[in-house]
Amino acid sequence: MAFTEFRPLDEKLLIEYIKATPSLSSKIGNQFDDLTIKEVGDGNLNFVYIVVGTSGSIVIKQALEYIRCIGESWPMTRERAYFEALALKEHRQLCPDHVPEVYHFDRRMSLIGMRFLEPPHIILRKGLIAGIEYPLLAEHISEYMAKTLFCTSLLYRSTMEHKRAVAEFCGNVELCNHTARVVFSDPYRVSQYNHWTSPYLDRDVEAVREDNYLKIEIAELKSKYYFFLCSVKELKLSYMGISTLALVISGVGIVLQSYKEWILRTLEETWTLFHKKFTALWDQHKGGSGEAYVPEIYNNPEIQQLVQQKFMKDLFHDTLGFGGLWVWSMLRILNQLRMPENEQLVNNKLLNLQKCF
Amino acid sequence: MAFTEFRPLDEKLLIEYIKATPSLSSKIGNQFDDLTIKEVGDGNLNFVYIVVGTSGSIVIKQALEYIRCIGESWPMTRERAYFEALALKEHRQLCPDHVPEVYHFDRRMSLIGMRFLEPPHIILRKGLIAGIEYPLLAEHISEYMAKTLFCTSLLYRSTMEHKRAVAEFCGNVELCNHTARVVFSDPYRVSQYNHWTSPYLDRDVEAVREDNYLKIEIAELKSKYYFFLCSVKELKLSYMGISTLALVISGVGIVLQSYKEWILRTLEETWTLFHKKFTALWDQHKGGSGEAYVPEIYNNPEIQQLVQQKFMKDLFHDTLGFGGLWVWSMLRILNQLRMPENEQLVNNKLLNLQKCF
Repeated sequence: MAFTEFRPLDEKLLIEYIKATPSLSSKIGNQFDDLTIKEVGDGNLNFVYIVVGTSGSIVIKQALEYIRCIGESWPMTRERAYFEALALKEHRQLCPDHVPEVYHFDRRMSLIGMRFLEPPHIILRKGLIAGIEYPLLAEHISEYMAKTLFCTSLLYRSTMEHKRAVAEFCGNVELCNHTARVVFSDPYRVSQYNHWTSPYLDRDVEAVREDNYLKIEIAELKSKYYFFLCSVKELKLSYMGISTLALVISGVGIVLQSYKEWILRTLEETWTLFHKKFTALWDQHKGGSGEAYVPEIYNNPEIQQLVQQKFMKDLFHDTLGFGGLWVWSMLRILNQLRMPENEQLVNNKLLNLQKCF
Repeated sequence: MAFTEFRPLDEKLLIEYIKATPSLSSKIGNQFDDLTIKEVGDGNLNFVYIVVGTSGSIVIKQALEYIRCIGESWPMTRERAYFEALALKEHRQLCPDHVPEVYHFDRRMSLIGMRFLEPPHIILRKGLIAGIEYPLLAEHISEYMAKTLFCTSLLYRSTMEHKRAVAEFCGNVELCNHTARVVFSDPYRVSQYNHWTSPYLDRDVEAVREDNYLKIEIAELKSKYYFFLCSVKELKLSYMGISTLALVISGVGIVLQSYKEWILRTLEETWTLFHKKFTALWDQHKGGSGEAYVPEIYNNPEIQQLVQQKFMKDLFHDTLGFGGLWVWSMLRILNQLRMPENEQLVNNKLLNLQKCF
């Protein structure tokens, strides 16, 4: 059967699709008899199938015209799959050790075929919730962040390449709007998608909605998000990376003191290592095609140092802002825990981290 | 003769082109016998022809593959004409009283046909140099700035429309790079395009090239230029408008005290009126499709006022930065006057204006 137009997959269609696609069928050794197919239930946005055969495995991800975890009532273009595939392929080129390979992308079907990281690999979030300490986490995350962020910025790219990428990623506006709504809007207004532990947190929720100064800061971050992140992607991962960890801090009320300490250490190490690796890449490429700081102008060690210090300080400032916001909106939405304590905890930790810097 | 591919115009070709183009020939009443054609010599980038007949007139503007005032040694894509026509048409829709009509655009020929503003109209710069006081200047410039800036920003547009425009204007990267080079790079490094009154200003030129803190500020403005101006256009005009006037201040050493006062008054009025008109548009459209400040979040008079104050203050801050920079680079490049005095003058005036605010 040919897949000449978009069709949402089910297991039967999925097998037909793989059979018809050499770049996928070859990964499972062209064996279709003993396939195990599992739709992974925890995707927020997309449908994700793990396909395991006797001689190989793949992951197939398909975007439908709506947000999976909400349903057809929140429509969203399938084109998000295109931008995801684009980013994955680019990031893999920049950091092959920490980004899975994309075997196949089909824009018409909004379908990505990619490497399945077999057990004992699990999703990091699950590992952290289970209290596992990963001694190399900071090393790996900082490596990924430094390489992908540096190499997609104007510190490395010419304005020509950069603008081309910006124009391309402007097409991903719907997904950006979705994130903007979840992070910058809904928690600060009445919305059907807000959930909290009622009645215990009712007053807190109201206090947030009435905090003018907080809302002004939110507007500031939202404007940065639109201009820098959406289009340029260059800071996005830094806030995602740091905030994934920060999110976990917010849950540490239920775990051991020693694990809390490991998390905080890892958070601090991640920034320290990222700082080191990012500035090392900068030093290494400062005579290259990046157009942010023209070498003939920023031409002595003192100014180079001043410029780097300012850049990294601003980046850290933004990272804390987005990280804090992300934690905050997650707490509102996932409704996992009592909030005021955790927020206080997160705020204190971020404050401490800022002091360290 | 058909114009099926790009050809640089001369007078003969120009007449043929107009004859073959009804939207142009109709403007001069289809009379070709008594045409006067004058190539206006003062274009920096393009060739500009004024075509006057017995029953009408037009302006024809053509972009070649290089920058006119420098020559073929500085190549630049002709596509800049496309973006100019796009912006002109859009701005005319937003502010028909102060933007000339585009009669015709030919992308293949990089050619714009537009209204000729007949005498007594002259180019504003020339009027200012001649010492003419225009009592309505602040009123008109502020009107144009408020309407075009507000209506192309996220205060008025949805993110969808906005991103589409950003993606489109990313294509204008070469012209943006040219401006960036002239304004943010060349004055701060050794460049063949720098001119100054040597040997009198040699030490000043050197001092600029060695001022680390100035160069750090320049980098900051350049980064704003790339993210906000190039792509979004929304602040561009404010800095152009204000800085055109600021440029004139720099030349007031040679004119009457009363004219200096008129210029400063106009500069101040321009900002004051712009502020008033821009915030009025904002109030008027605050329940509209603009997505920067969602009404359900920014939902009480106090926060609306705080948000507007912050926005306008930041905008003013940026405007002064770009205005100052623009004057500075113009002084370097045009080499019109002795510099240190004028800079001091401009700096003082801008400082005063900032205090007023």
